[in-house]
Amino acid sequence: MSTTTSIARVGDFAGQAVTLEGWLYNKRSSGKIQFLQVRDGTGLIQCVAVKAEVGEDTFAVCASLTQESSLRVTGLVRADDRAPGGYELTVQSVEAVQIAEEYPISLKEHGVDFLMDHRHLWVRVPRQRALLRIRAEVERAVAAYLDGNGFTRVDPPLLTPSSCEDTTELFHTQYFDQEAYLTQSGQMYMEAAAMSLGKVYSAGPAFRAEKSKTRRHLIEFWMIEPEMAFVEHDENLRIQEQLVSHVVKHVLNHCEEELHTLGRDVSALAKVEAPFPRLSYDEAIDWLQKHDFDIQWGDDFGSPHETALANQFDRPLFIERYPTAIKAFYMQPDPNRPEVALCADMLAPEGYGEIIGGSQRIHDYELLKQRFDEHKLPEDTYAWYLDLRKYGSVPHSGFGLGLERTIAWISGIEHIREAIAFPRTLYRLYP
Amino acid sequence: MSTTTSIARVGDFAGQAVTLEGWLYNKRSSGKIQFLQVRDGTGLIQCVAVKAEVGEDTFAVCASLTQESSLRVTGLVRADDRAPGGYELTVQSVEAVQIAEEYPISLKEHGVDFLMDHRHLWVRVPRQRALLRIRAEVERAVAAYLDGNGFTRVDPPLLTPSSCEDTTELFHTQYFDQEAYLTQSGQMYMEAAAMSLGKVYSAGPAFRAEKSKTRRHLIEFWMIEPEMAFVEHDENLRIQEQLVSHVVKHVLNHCEEELHTLGRDVSALAKVEAPFPRLSYDEAIDWLQKHDFDIQWGDDFGSPHETALANQFDRPLFIERYPTAIKAFYMQPDPNRPEVALCADMLAPEGYGEIIGGSQRIHDYELLKQRFDEHKLPEDTYAWYLDLRKYGSVPHSGFGLGLERTIAWISGIEHIREAIAFPRTLYRLYP
Ligand SMILES: [Mg+2]
Ligand SMILES: [Mg+2]
Repeated sequence: MSTTTSIARVGDFAGQAVTLEGWLYNKRSSGKIQFLQVRDGTGLIQCVAVKAEVGEDTFAVCASLTQESSLRVTGLVRADDRAPGGYELTVQSVEAVQIAEEYPISLKEHGVDFLMDHRHLWVRVPRQRALLRIRAEVERAVAAYLDGNGFTRVDPPLLTPSSCEDTTELFHTQYFDQEAYLTQSGQMYMEAAAMSLGKVYSAGPAFRAEKSKTRRHLIEFWMIEPEMAFVEHDENLRIQEQLVSHVVKHVLNHCEEELHTLGRDVSALAKVEAPFPRLSYDEAIDWLQKHDFDIQWGDDFGSPHETALANQFDRPLFIERYPTAIKAFYMQPDPNRPEVALCADMLAPEGYGEIIGGSQRIHDYELLKQRFDEHKLPEDTYAWYLDLRKYGSVPHSGFGLGLERTIAWISGIEHIREAIAFPRTLYRLYP
Repeated sequence: MSTTTSIARVGDFAGQAVTLEGWLYNKRSSGKIQFLQVRDGTGLIQCVAVKAEVGEDTFAVCASLTQESSLRVTGLVRADDRAPGGYELTVQSVEAVQIAEEYPISLKEHGVDFLMDHRHLWVRVPRQRALLRIRAEVERAVAAYLDGNGFTRVDPPLLTPSSCEDTTELFHTQYFDQEAYLTQSGQMYMEAAAMSLGKVYSAGPAFRAEKSKTRRHLIEFWMIEPEMAFVEHDENLRIQEQLVSHVVKHVLNHCEEELHTLGRDVSALAKVEAPFPRLSYDEAIDWLQKHDFDIQWGDDFGSPHETALANQFDRPLFIERYPTAIKAFYMQPDPNRPEVALCADMLAPEGYGEIIGGSQRIHDYELLKQRFDEHKLPEDTYAWYLDLRKYGSVPHSGFGLGLERTIAWISGIEHIREAIAFPRTLYRLYP
């Protein structure tokens, strides 16, 4: 009896017989020898079946295997420096678990709509597997950094009676006798949690019913939302740059093979070290005007502005202190200059745009109440949020990191839709 | 200048002056001395202000502090074996950040509706803080076990065109030109992911629009859903008992103080070691009939049945091989006895009911297609799921662990609603 193991672990069994369970990724034959490339979710290995050694029947089973057929293969593990993982398998026997129909995703090019329609199968190709693994490692790295720095994970609700940022672009649903909306951000709930636990973070899905079809938008996306009591603007930025540096370093250390599969320029990632450069909104406007952009103080930035600004730097760029008027109602105005807010966006390099938006929050009851009135926010829905300013209010700050945008940047992919297993984009809900 | 630190870290500064930032939890005074109990999310510490030492003004600030007022306090760290955390602070100066209005949650008893209406403040009391911390540690332990055992985290979509288990009890929403539903389970998507990555798991919210108001139900709840290619029924159960044992051990090791706050009988938890006892459904029915329960082969269990069965054991109990007819359509029938399915529920001890439901999945295309027809499931919606049986189908298994039920059991609390920061229960959507 041979040991059943995974491809990632064959190195522990050099010279011994093992059984691997997986799928046929590719195959080539030279008449008397078949080379089966087998994948199992942990890696890829070449299995060599020599007709004269395995016999007619086993050789015929090998010949019958189509792309993506499932199989069990038993053979001797042989070290081979030329092999991708360092090992090959000399086949002794093969069992076809299921012979796959002709696989719709061949090794040639396909259109995006076709691939999206077959996302349940598309996830099996090496590039998509690499992206899914990088996503998992980014999530691990975020949790490791925050757990290791005094944060407690808290899960805010997704069904909410109110919108955090605006009342348009919401998905609504009937919640028994009430109207409910799918969350756009858990921030307000995280503020309540921070007043209990000090430093907290969430990691979960959020929704925007936005009719935009850009390579940076998903309808359903994941956000990491840390919120910190007694943390003010500058410290908020320091924590953000530490977190992002940690995540990039973790991926470089744990996903070498995946980044190679994607053809990512890892030298660009190696430069991502805190501290990150900072520009004030004022400086950014000046720079843009000097470089012939048609933009005035008080305007928000578009993608071309962000890209031009970020392209000056080889690491993420903070733009801080935006005009209060173009930012969310809950942001703390700069006490020395109330027309700008104590906020910052973090722009990824290489044209990937905003990956973090954050700010210090208003902690004064009267000022927040005034903002509620200005924005005509229903006080009954938000009474609990105002309560946080009545009972031991403290200066506090937080931010939201867009998981898919961060993954897209680190992975160097064109479109954010490949940064999540089953993307929800405009009009697309299948599979 | 004193160092600003957290209560958890004061031990590093014994004999030195530090500044702490937090909230007043409680206070008592003896005329010339005030004892301030201060919390900051990392712990609780007693700060002692002696009028003769701090002076009139500082003493007056101390006197002005109401319950939950926010403050900064500077003082000398003094080791004291009688103090809960081992240290006290001898106050030098105090700054009131904000004087709280009269705190609605006093240290006396309140009704559940009142507490739920004030959940944003209720989360600050020691019992609720302990529960939030245990939740975070359970999530960490789950991820640590699965990440360490070859699983890759995958996030399935929440907006779906289909229901996994049935079409009732769904929250629906308009997704541009289509009808969408909030997921009840990511299982089907995890099956697709398992065919790419081998072993995968999800950790995220799910929704049931169920009009039930029991202490075991939430409308919005979190599930951990592992799915494993080439894993069959017995191995599925072994992985479940390893995971649950690991989680319980982790909480015992990391949440000693929190379990103490909750008054949890930790000796009961210490008995939770794999392997767990197993009963077949047949044996369970026999036992129930012998103990005068009015139940027939083919009936599903209710809470009283589950409690009676589980109470025989001091660790979680598997009940396996339920009648195929009362379980989900995708469960693999036992090949030797197709009237029962290769499935199991894990029942927590001490009356906490089902914390895991799992099964081997049908991997044969023809059988699954037949089940689709029997259950009149729309094939266009599920075509992708059937595809998984056409392209390299393999025996595979998975399970869903209910996060809040698991936390409720480990914490020993009465009602599941305290196992999540902002519970969504029947008719309750605020705060
Ligand atoms: Mg601070
Ligand atoms: Mg197996």
